[in-house]
Amino acid sequence: MLVVMDKKATAEQVDAAVALIESRGYTARPIPGGQRVAICILHNHGPVDASVFLGLPGVKEAIPVTHPYKLVSRELQPEDSVVDVRGVRIGNGHLTVMAGPCAVESEEQALTIARLVKKAGAHLFRGGAFKPRTSPYAFQGLGEEGLKILAKVREETGMPVVTEAIDHEVFDLVEEYADVVQIGARNMQNFSLLRRAGRSDKPILLKRGLAATIEEWLMAAEYIMEGGNTGVILCERGVRTFAHHSRNTLDLSAIPVVRKESHLPVIVDPSHAAGRRNQVIPLSRGAVAVGCHGLMVEVHHQPERALSDGAQSLFPEQFEDLLRQIKAIFEVYCRANGCGE
Amino acid sequence: MLVVMDKKATAEQVDAAVALIESRGYTARPIPGGQRVAICILHNHGPVDASVFLGLPGVKEAIPVTHPYKLVSRELQPEDSVVDVRGVRIGNGHLTVMAGPCAVESEEQALTIARLVKKAGAHLFRGGAFKPRTSPYAFQGLGEEGLKILAKVREETGMPVVTEAIDHEVFDLVEEYADVVQIGARNMQNFSLLRRAGRSDKPILLKRGLAATIEEWLMAAEYIMEGGNTGVILCERGVRTFAHHSRNTLDLSAIPVVRKESHLPVIVDPSHAAGRRNQVIPLSRGAVAVGCHGLMVEVHHQPERALSDGAQSLFPEQFEDLLRQIKAIFEVYCRANGCGE
Amino acid sequence: MLVVMDKKATAEQVDAAVALIESRGYTARPIPGGQRVAICILHNHGPVDASVFLGLPGVKEAIPVTHPYKLVSRELQPEDSVVDVRGVRIGNGHLTVMAGPCAVESEEQALTIARLVKKAGAHLFRGGAFKPRTSPYAFQGLGEEGLKILAKVREETGMPVVTEAIDHEVFDLVEEYADVVQIGARNMQNFSLLRRAGRSDKPILLKRGLAATIEEWLMAAEYIMEGGNTGVILCERGVRTFAHHSRNTLDLSAIPVVRKESHLPVIVDPSHAAGRRNQVIPLSRGAVAVGCHGLMVEVHHQPERALSDGAQSLFPEQFEDLLRQIKAIFEVYCRANGCGE
Amino acid sequence: MLVVMDKKATAEQVDAAVALIESRGYTARPIPGGQRVAICILHNHGPVDASVFLGLPGVKEAIPVTHPYKLVSRELQPEDSVVDVRGVRIGNGHLTVMAGPCAVESEEQALTIARLVKKAGAHLFRGGAFKPRTSPYAFQGLGEEGLKILAKVREETGMPVVTEAIDHEVFDLVEEYADVVQIGARNMQNFSLLRRAGRSDKPILLKRGLAATIEEWLMAAEYIMEGGNTGVILCERGVRTFAHHSRNTLDLSAIPVVRKESHLPVIVDPSHAAGRRNQVIPLSRGAVAVGCHGLMVEVHHQPERALSDGAQSLFPEQFEDLLRQIKAIFEVYCRANGCGE
Repeated sequence: MLVVMDKKATAEQVDAAVALIESRGYTARPIPGGQRVAICILHNHGPVDASVFLGLPGVKEAIPVTHPYKLVSRELQPEDSVVDVRGVRIGNGHLTVMAGPCAVESEEQALTIARLVKKAGAHLFRGGAFKPRTSPYAFQGLGEEGLKILAKVREETGMPVVTEAIDHEVFDLVEEYADVVQIGARNMQNFSLLRRAGRSDKPILLKRGLAATIEEWLMAAEYIMEGGNTGVILCERGVRTFAHHSRNTLDLSAIPVVRKESHLPVIVDPSHAAGRRNQVIPLSRGAVAVGCHGLMVEVHHQPERALSDGAQSLFPEQFEDLLRQIKAIFEVYCRANGCGE
Repeated sequence: MLVVMDKKATAEQVDAAVALIESRGYTARPIPGGQRVAICILHNHGPVDASVFLGLPGVKEAIPVTHPYKLVSRELQPEDSVVDVRGVRIGNGHLTVMAGPCAVESEEQALTIARLVKKAGAHLFRGGAFKPRTSPYAFQGLGEEGLKILAKVREETGMPVVTEAIDHEVFDLVEEYADVVQIGARNMQNFSLLRRAGRSDKPILLKRGLAATIEEWLMAAEYIMEGGNTGVILCERGVRTFAHHSRNTLDLSAIPVVRKESHLPVIVDPSHAAGRRNQVIPLSRGAVAVGCHGLMVEVHHQPERALSDGAQSLFPEQFEDLLRQIKAIFEVYCRANGCGE
Repeated sequence: MLVVMDKKATAEQVDAAVALIESRGYTARPIPGGQRVAICILHNHGPVDASVFLGLPGVKEAIPVTHPYKLVSRELQPEDSVVDVRGVRIGNGHLTVMAGPCAVESEEQALTIARLVKKAGAHLFRGGAFKPRTSPYAFQGLGEEGLKILAKVREETGMPVVTEAIDHEVFDLVEEYADVVQIGARNMQNFSLLRRAGRSDKPILLKRGLAATIEEWLMAAEYIMEGGNTGVILCERGVRTFAHHSRNTLDLSAIPVVRKESHLPVIVDPSHAAGRRNQVIPLSRGAVAVGCHGLMVEVHHQPERALSDGAQSLFPEQFEDLLRQIKAIFEVYCRANGCGE
Repeated sequence: MLVVMDKKATAEQVDAAVALIESRGYTARPIPGGQRVAICILHNHGPVDASVFLGLPGVKEAIPVTHPYKLVSRELQPEDSVVDVRGVRIGNGHLTVMAGPCAVESEEQALTIARLVKKAGAHLFRGGAFKPRTSPYAFQGLGEEGLKILAKVREETGMPVVTEAIDHEVFDLVEEYADVVQIGARNMQNFSLLRRAGRSDKPILLKRGLAATIEEWLMAAEYIMEGGNTGVILCERGVRTFAHHSRNTLDLSAIPVVRKESHLPVIVDPSHAAGRRNQVIPLSRGAVAVGCHGLMVEVHHQPERALSDGAQSLFPEQFEDLLRQIKAIFEVYCRANGCGE
């Protein structure tokens, strides 16, 4: 933290700021500049709250210098983490594809789609049993019945399954059935649910919040790791901006930043970012080329009959085409950048 | 919903869209324009999912025409709702002020501040016992001990108390002690918590999410009302934008829009919007002038020692000054616009 | 500027950063912290370009500490500036109202509206002769004919007139006719036009850009002042965010920030922010209560026939009502905060 | 345009809206729904101004249905446009790379970099002679001397050159020397400059504005085409959002949308989007994979000595590596999607 004083701050005001810093157990180092004094805060363990200094007499600004995350930080663990899901490895040079419908609608629907995406080359099956919906009147998912269908899909196809937990109660259930538990964008700062995830022995897929900075996203992962769960997979899914030609604005610059700041694997969900089928394939290619560790893609054999988000679901043949394209791009990526394990 | 076809859409494509609409139980009315066909969807009860039509061959766009909310809508209930909290009335011509520290830190701290804000004219006492914090390492609140202190504050000062519930478990506790249960910005789309709030007999203060549209905010209130709880108070607290001179950008245009669309009372939290003490008084004046039903303001007698958000807390004498100013502005507002009850 | 090194930066990398700083004529002061080194840059006159340091080996971040503006800064000139327009004073305790149609459409239209707004209490007349329009096919204004009508309005009503200049050529013309030259939001970073404005002897009304930070806005004003023109009036008119219930999101927190950082007067344009008539009066009240130095409001006697932006224009009787309300709010403001001159 | 009436709108109010629509020469077609009336506007040539209807008694909303652009629209011209610059073809299956320093600093600097980027495979040379800078005190470019250096670069290397024109006066000069005239993000809605570009016989590189929607961007291109200049190249360069881990948020979803809506070529500038060297290569790969027609990349042989934007400039060896990677990705793209000409 750097506390910047006003040009006209008095010596007493500087002293008061120094005293406040030291009263909190930190070291204060004032640096007289040409025009004003700035005070560096040293020897802080953990983040310093800028707000303590803002509003003190003579203080102009308080500027954070370092990031508050620890366990997720690449400074702590330089090598890539790998999350292992029943033998499917995510991170560090693998390109992992999760695919399936937005919501599990019936056993027949789930199995049909699962067979199609497996044949095309998907590694995990995705499908919602509990759906967070903006409207209380919209289809909310099949609940536990959906989880049972997911278990059946795993049994029949061998694919591990990923599905969302929307609260504590649901988490207990989902944990029992699923191989990866998803925490959705709207719950990224549901700190209570993050703590619950931290106590789980299942890997967690943590989606970026609609308006979350990368620091906040990594701090959400820190909550999970702080609880003891090291199996965290980050998922970029677009952020909310003024632009409305896609549902959210997919922020692919997040990928190199997350990979620089953290050792955790990071995948991309182009379907929720786009909200429109015809953007999904281009954005998927872009995501793989940028350097993500995998994709989560919605696929439906009858999207016009889907109970939710049909418009963004690929047809099975599109998904096959997508896999062919991204594998080729991933090869180019690996030739140039190496591919870990 | 209006389904707009491409200029070159074929008659078959139009027919397919019409058939899909009708297969869902709606009435489709195609309107041949000069250059293209658009299809109006009629007789839908509840919202129509635009995504069903996007991506159909020949469909260019699907444009929602009406809003999905019902119970919160002023079209359903033309007159203002009033929420009664132990005799303090919120909404419809009242200006209600909630004040107190960000977090309850000790009995002495809470009682000291409570006496000061009551003397200045506050109607409710606010203070967090369970704090949602970006970092797992930051102070998380006193928990149930904090709730007991709040109960003591109510007992001693007569002021009803408002405090946040961050999950189901905490909700049960908070409901027992508090007069108004707050749902924070990060939980605005925690639909499970909203449903819990809908089953409560305590009024709910529902903060707007960091990047929530007004429609999403009203739909969150709809979740609560749909569960049977009619005591909903909305609270604008700033949204996230590119601008960083305040912590969030306070969106005062939300006030006239909410009042036009809904009958629910809507208050403003200038403290979390600003994040800096010196913006709180100007923004409070602005909020009252625009026409909100009340304010929620942070006050601390020793803000430089506060365990959270000290920089945005007013000194007690500033709060007194604030109340003098907003009362005078509210009188001007009422003279011009009338004041309900 | 603070250059923050990686935890693992070598002594050579720190030395290289120091050498680069000193090669640019600044003083480098390394501060060894508990975990990493940061280097303060001192004795810089004018801003330091952060980008020079980002990307150097061992450098983690480069954080600007001070603002780059000088002439517009309150640190340079502590007392409020006042801009005098033919005897109408703007800034420092005055509340100045500029009103009129979006575009000058005819002599009759302009004069009719001018008489009405003058009677209601407006101080300046506004009206566009050259309109910046998103579409090349939309009405672009009457051009010089419009300027002549504005001159006639001034002659008949005594009100000074403000109108927009959209390029150099138009600036020469507008400067000849108008009392205040407006630079629109889309031209806020048209640096060439700002330099032209700096050479003018007419006061300049500088609108904030659609996505401009306050620093960028003040730097745009700095361009004008650097050219020798001290008559700059800032105008907040809403910024672009994800929210679409108003055309732009009016950022009233900008008012206290601008007033803290700069001595220049700052007014608010609620009409372009809202884009809808029914939000204009509430936002105007809010703007005055927050502490702006004036308003710019669109008024039209036949808004349904207006050639542009009719939906946001007040009816004359609404404008009268508005003036009554804001005068009363301004009195409250002045009682509490003093009113300068 | 669809004019949506309030549920409680009277028959008179509907009639008034119809009358207003027809008074403007359009056809009004009221559609009685289950709960409210909506009125479709037909036979409009060019866009209808929504604001005319907002604020009419009984009108709830006015929703635009179609886009206002014509000449740039793929509905008008289904096949891709190709812009020919001295034999270098841009658009429709070509991948064109423009590279060079942010600013031309000296003949030696420009020639050194030009030879390096040419050798690596660049098709055009870029370099600013007139720089739009946020601060009036920052380096503003070499001016005409810079243009002469660019001409020399073309002479020596055979590469066509692209450089920015920041106003009319500069446009005349730039047009004389350059092969492609760039209009920068801050000038995207400088309509006067767009009209000047429309009268030019040089191709125009039109950058997307900091907060421009795709519709506004295409309308800016429409201004140029409406003036008779068909040589327009669009350039996505990131938009402003709440996120600050990159200078701007690169919006790669814009590429498929622009290609769907328009026949114009669209390239990507990853350097200004990122603002940091280490994001440029990943984002370039992503841009090519998504399907853009080319890149504009900053390269400098001594970035730590660059007079502007050094931090985002690639080292020459990085640029060579970049070209190898994107060529391989482009081949994958072409195999799957075909490559036009």
